[in-house]
Amino acid sequence: MSTGVVSHHISKQFDDELERIRTTVFAMGGLVEQQLNNALKSLIDGDIDLGNTVIETEVQVNSYDVSIDQECIRILARRQPAAGDLRLVMAITKTITDLERVGDEAEKIAMMGIGLTDKHGLKSYHVGINAMGNLVSQLLHGALDAFARMDSKKAVEVAGKEAESDDQYGAILRQLITYMMEDPRNISGALDAVWVARALERIGDHSRNICENIIYLVEGEDVRHSSIKHMEQIVAD
Amino acid sequence: MSTGVVSHHISKQFDDELERIRTTVFAMGGLVEQQLNNALKSLIDGDIDLGNTVIETEVQVNSYDVSIDQECIRILARRQPAAGDLRLVMAITKTITDLERVGDEAEKIAMMGIGLTDKHGLKSYHVGINAMGNLVSQLLHGALDAFARMDSKKAVEVAGKEAESDDQYGAILRQLITYMMEDPRNISGALDAVWVARALERIGDHSRNICENIIYLVEGEDVRHSSIKHMEQIVAD
Repeated sequence: MSTGVVSHHISKQFDDELERIRTTVFAMGGLVEQQLNNALKSLIDGDIDLGNTVIETEVQVNSYDVSIDQECIRILARRQPAAGDLRLVMAITKTITDLERVGDEAEKIAMMGIGLTDKHGLKSYHVGINAMGNLVSQLLHGALDAFARMDSKKAVEVAGKEAESDDQYGAILRQLITYMMEDPRNISGALDAVWVARALERIGDHSRNICENIIYLVEGEDVRHSSIKHMEQIVAD
Repeated sequence: MSTGVVSHHISKQFDDELERIRTTVFAMGGLVEQQLNNALKSLIDGDIDLGNTVIETEVQVNSYDVSIDQECIRILARRQPAAGDLRLVMAITKTITDLERVGDEAEKIAMMGIGLTDKHGLKSYHVGINAMGNLVSQLLHGALDAFARMDSKKAVEVAGKEAESDDQYGAILRQLITYMMEDPRNISGALDAVWVARALERIGDHSRNICENIIYLVEGEDVRHSSIKHMEQIVAD
């Protein structure tokens, strides 16, 4: 009986540890999401103070990255989790790497906003960049939401939408090349917009990676190199 | 006595498993290195067949990525490794993610070589791209070498050299912008060269990440957000 209680207690403590680490991942995710939204806002509004806030937040994001990773390794060493618990820990270590890199890209966007060579040049592209920024921000939000609810169907849906951001990226790029060709004085400004679009495209990629981690976690299958169609089949079964 | 033998046997089997997984990581690393070198060669020589080989190799790299990850998770679940063995497994899961992304970037370089909008435009930049390609290829080779020898000092040395590739990237970019401004007809060709330089810069980043994994593995300290100076202190102690 006493063994039962102890074992229950240990298991409860383990549950608490896993829950605590999940909560920390959500906190990190929320911070990174805020970083992205502030980076976009600072770029569009030309708000240098807000841009600097994004850059300063990077230290916090990195500190989450290191501490969550340490906690995962501590759990692996002390709890020796199996099956779903093990997959959760592994999915978390991969997810925080992606989140940290989203933070890096948000930082690049903020720095671009601060150091814009040609604010007017970027202004002409507000519409395209803004639309792509909104989409990518939704992708990240959707991925984090799917992670919080351990919802693999939602994860497939978000991963599927990532192709739209690639299309938008291609369209922005073509538009920018035309703009550069029209007048070489546009080149520096247009290249700034290219880097922003590129950073957004990578954030889309990382959001998709996070979705793939969720599908692995929930369904137990590694879908990192699979088509969306294959993912849909897995979650439908 | 019999228990001793069994335990020795189990440990020997575990050693073999870890050794086998390390060997597989080297094989994956060798393949990715070859991919990068072939991608650069195909781009410079305009060798479309070689470029296609690089793209086809991607399937093999992805398959290594998935199978090594599965093996790591199997080891975590069945062997419940501690201390150095656990760090080895975690460093491997992170390293193969970086290797897989180096493969992705090599594929992009190969595709760029195949679809060049303006072969002549890129030709003007052979010197810069070639020099950066050689440096980045050395960084990757050095990182893999440090991994094979579990040499954290070498890892710090390679990580330190990565800043050179950032400098080269900046120089190439400035040169390309000038070239675009001189004549708008150069824009498409020069942008191709920009993407190649960007892909090389990211391969440099991934090589540095691999070095950071080695330092963590050997020294037990997470240096992912540390300065080179701090890394040097850690390996000197």
